[in-house]
Amino acid sequence: MNIVPPKPALPPLSSDLIARFKSIVGDKYAVTDTNDIAPYATEERNLFHGHSPLVLRPGSTAEVSAICKLATEHRIALVPQGGNTGLVGGQTPHNGEVVVSMRRMDKIREVDAASNTMTVDAGVVLQVAQQRAADVDRLFPLSLGAEGSCTIGGNLSTNAGGTGALAYGVAREMALGLEVVLADGRILNGLSKLKKDNTGYDLRNLFIGAEGTLGIITAATLKLFPKPRAVETAFVGLTSPAAALKLLAISQSEAAGGLTSFELLADIAVDFSVRHGIGIRHPLASKHPWFVLMEVSSSRDDARATMEAILERGMEDGIVDDAVIAANLGQRTAFWKLRDEMSAAQKPEGGSIKHDISVPVAAVPAFIEEANAAVVKLIPGSRPVPFGHLGDGNIHYNVSQPLQGMSTADFLARWHDVNAVVFAIVLRMGGSISAEHGIGVLKRDELPDVKDKVAIALMRDIKTILDPQGIMNPGKVL
Amino acid sequence: MNIVPPKPALPPLSSDLIARFKSIVGDKYAVTDTNDIAPYATEERNLFHGHSPLVLRPGSTAEVSAICKLATEHRIALVPQGGNTGLVGGQTPHNGEVVVSMRRMDKIREVDAASNTMTVDAGVVLQVAQQRAADVDRLFPLSLGAEGSCTIGGNLSTNAGGTGALAYGVAREMALGLEVVLADGRILNGLSKLKKDNTGYDLRNLFIGAEGTLGIITAATLKLFPKPRAVETAFVGLTSPAAALKLLAISQSEAAGGLTSFELLADIAVDFSVRHGIGIRHPLASKHPWFVLMEVSSSRDDARATMEAILERGMEDGIVDDAVIAANLGQRTAFWKLRDEMSAAQKPEGGSIKHDISVPVAAVPAFIEEANAAVVKLIPGSRPVPFGHLGDGNIHYNVSQPLQGMSTADFLARWHDVNAVVFAIVLRMGGSISAEHGIGVLKRDELPDVKDKVAIALMRDIKTILDPQGIMNPGKVL
Repeated sequence: MNIVPPKPALPPLSSDLIARFKSIVGDKYAVTDTNDIAPYATEERNLFHGHSPLVLRPGSTAEVSAICKLATEHRIALVPQGGNTGLVGGQTPHNGEVVVSMRRMDKIREVDAASNTMTVDAGVVLQVAQQRAADVDRLFPLSLGAEGSCTIGGNLSTNAGGTGALAYGVAREMALGLEVVLADGRILNGLSKLKKDNTGYDLRNLFIGAEGTLGIITAATLKLFPKPRAVETAFVGLTSPAAALKLLAISQSEAAGGLTSFELLADIAVDFSVRHGIGIRHPLASKHPWFVLMEVSSSRDDARATMEAILERGMEDGIVDDAVIAANLGQRTAFWKLRDEMSAAQKPEGGSIKHDISVPVAAVPAFIEEANAAVVKLIPGSRPVPFGHLGDGNIHYNVSQPLQGMSTADFLARWHDVNAVVFAIVLRMGGSISAEHGIGVLKRDELPDVKDKVAIALMRDIKTILDPQGIMNPGKVL
Repeated sequence: MNIVPPKPALPPLSSDLIARFKSIVGDKYAVTDTNDIAPYATEERNLFHGHSPLVLRPGSTAEVSAICKLATEHRIALVPQGGNTGLVGGQTPHNGEVVVSMRRMDKIREVDAASNTMTVDAGVVLQVAQQRAADVDRLFPLSLGAEGSCTIGGNLSTNAGGTGALAYGVAREMALGLEVVLADGRILNGLSKLKKDNTGYDLRNLFIGAEGTLGIITAATLKLFPKPRAVETAFVGLTSPAAALKLLAISQSEAAGGLTSFELLADIAVDFSVRHGIGIRHPLASKHPWFVLMEVSSSRDDARATMEAILERGMEDGIVDDAVIAANLGQRTAFWKLRDEMSAAQKPEGGSIKHDISVPVAAVPAFIEEANAAVVKLIPGSRPVPFGHLGDGNIHYNVSQPLQGMSTADFLARWHDVNAVVFAIVLRMGGSISAEHGIGVLKRDELPDVKDKVAIALMRDIKTILDPQGIMNPGKVL
């Protein structure tokens, strides 16, 4: 896979400047040793390798502001970093940028259960935020694979999605207010617990999803939700994505906002998990070409009845071929483990060309059918492994290499060809080539081809205003 | 009340230019007669009187684009207008601007029930959109007093709130994508049915709530929701806003997202409605200082049980003093009529100084207590009439003149003094001086005093980029 080269570097750091940056955070929190820098310069899959002379670990918004001010004065490029779990190379330095690691800023500033809000530093780990909400009998519903290490600042900068988006929305919809340090060091104080505030332009949403290219999010006020008292999880076998779409409609009509997950899984994806995951068993004895993993949550004691009503209607309508409801927490966890293993389970099957696409929900069946046909036509024997969040129209459309006759290297060399075929179908259906993961450097050079020209022009204008020197995460997104 | 004067007018229209503008929409859809213009130049309360030489009624996005292009070439100021129901003077011309009325663009472009989306022209009336959603067994939950005449374009441009915001969010949260004509005539094609799309900066939210100062919204793709099958409405008597806040917490824990309304009403507000509204009866025989009007919705048949569980817990905890659940649709409608009359019912009581504020939900009781004390201290005998959306922290904090000893004119002359006292408390509590209605011209000159300085600077920068000549709704917001 070709990693897109970053843009030309800004001026290199002098030793004098390094000393001035270090004095802002204190020697203890400035990393200059190459070995110590390595974990910040490479991400966990080892896909993006960069280098950096300096990692700064500020402990306060004032320190972040001082860093940005100094960087602006001397045109020094900065890369903001949270838990370093991003999948598109947005959070790592590529060409000698200074890394600003936000993980030390990990305070929960306030929990206000009565207002259903929580104000946290950007470096708070998602799982910690979830736990603090649970401690006051509330739910912070953002949930994704990396939740044990990703941070709220990173979640917001990338507008994270995850499995809770169906009922609660993406990260964007969970932030009431932000505190942001701008490229020149100014602090935008937009922290707010208000659900309704119509005093001027919405600036918050500019920074959410901007992948650190417009400023550094230092804190956020998050929405909390009532904690469900009952959750029911079912694993359903069915004939096709079209049948799954019908089951989704039934589920939404029965459970409304109580339908908290609806994942569509191809048989081959389930098979990979069962075969390669440790201790994973198939929840159903019968064979089916497609499966749905779904959850119904309720604040009262009716989740079981709702789930049963959904499955009954599905069976009556000939949509559901077989189904099992998790009998206990252990079974529920097992169902989800099978789902969570799906990315990792593709590795033992050889090369995998990945896509994180979305299309209108109603178009998912047609998308899968057309993409499967096009990909197999392009590379005979290649194996599409689609799975994802049907309720959001978001499919992780991965393609594993043929079982024989093609080396992994030869297969992966077709990455862009496969992308082109898949993205063409996505765009024709009004979809997105990056539903959850963002642009980073991975999809930066594809963006101009798929995005509205006026939108790109406006993005550039906004970038120019907020970061005239181009020091904020250069070479990412635009 | 002093209406803030608009900024200096841009150059006047020549007859040649009028002819060119007319040729874009056709003579039939260009209004030049002073009498015919009047309804567009004044809003329904007759509070803001403006004048305009020309009202254009475009029938397509291409026509809106041509209008903006010509206006930019000749620096002609434009005022976009929907249903002309705004409350802050944002939608009317003040000083000879050309009005661009969007009401002719009233097509429902597509309803996609399977994707839970609907794409509409900006001029579609809110009630029409609600009805079309209902026709396919879906809910479009935006709901406000003016829904019979306000338009989707206006709702989005002002980021309307209303009574459905508690469960479904404000207008901002109901738009998946927008089509916008920029000041220079470029068309931003951001229509999208996607819930997840992380390809670059969020431009949609810049235009939502910008009150037509950054461009003209010409179409939107809206989210649809499952239509509730059962709605239960209760009218509750209680001792204080603090008790209401406790009942809110109980309600959210029992009903979660099924709690679709939670309105706090002062006794005096209920009393005004009963006294001055036609055919309005008090729902409770007993006297209470405060009331709550609440609704629980459900996609299943458990709304009644949920409502009863909430009220039982409220009574057990000594929070609910008395309550009645509407026995039928007629009673439910009567409860809401009492609520909907509250603004109008203040007129017969003399002058009313109005505020549309929000504070963190937990701060509402303290806000009401402090504001009441401060206002009565400022104007002895004045009568605070607070009511509004407790679940959103949004209170319409209106103050009626003293029963005797003060003329209406003398009372209204204190408008800004009362504002100052109330806003000081709002700001100390981290609140907003405009929760729902926006800034327009009414609050424009107060905005710099209450808004973060960095935010104001960024707003100006963004305005400069998107509307360098200042032709889009000049003198509004900024």
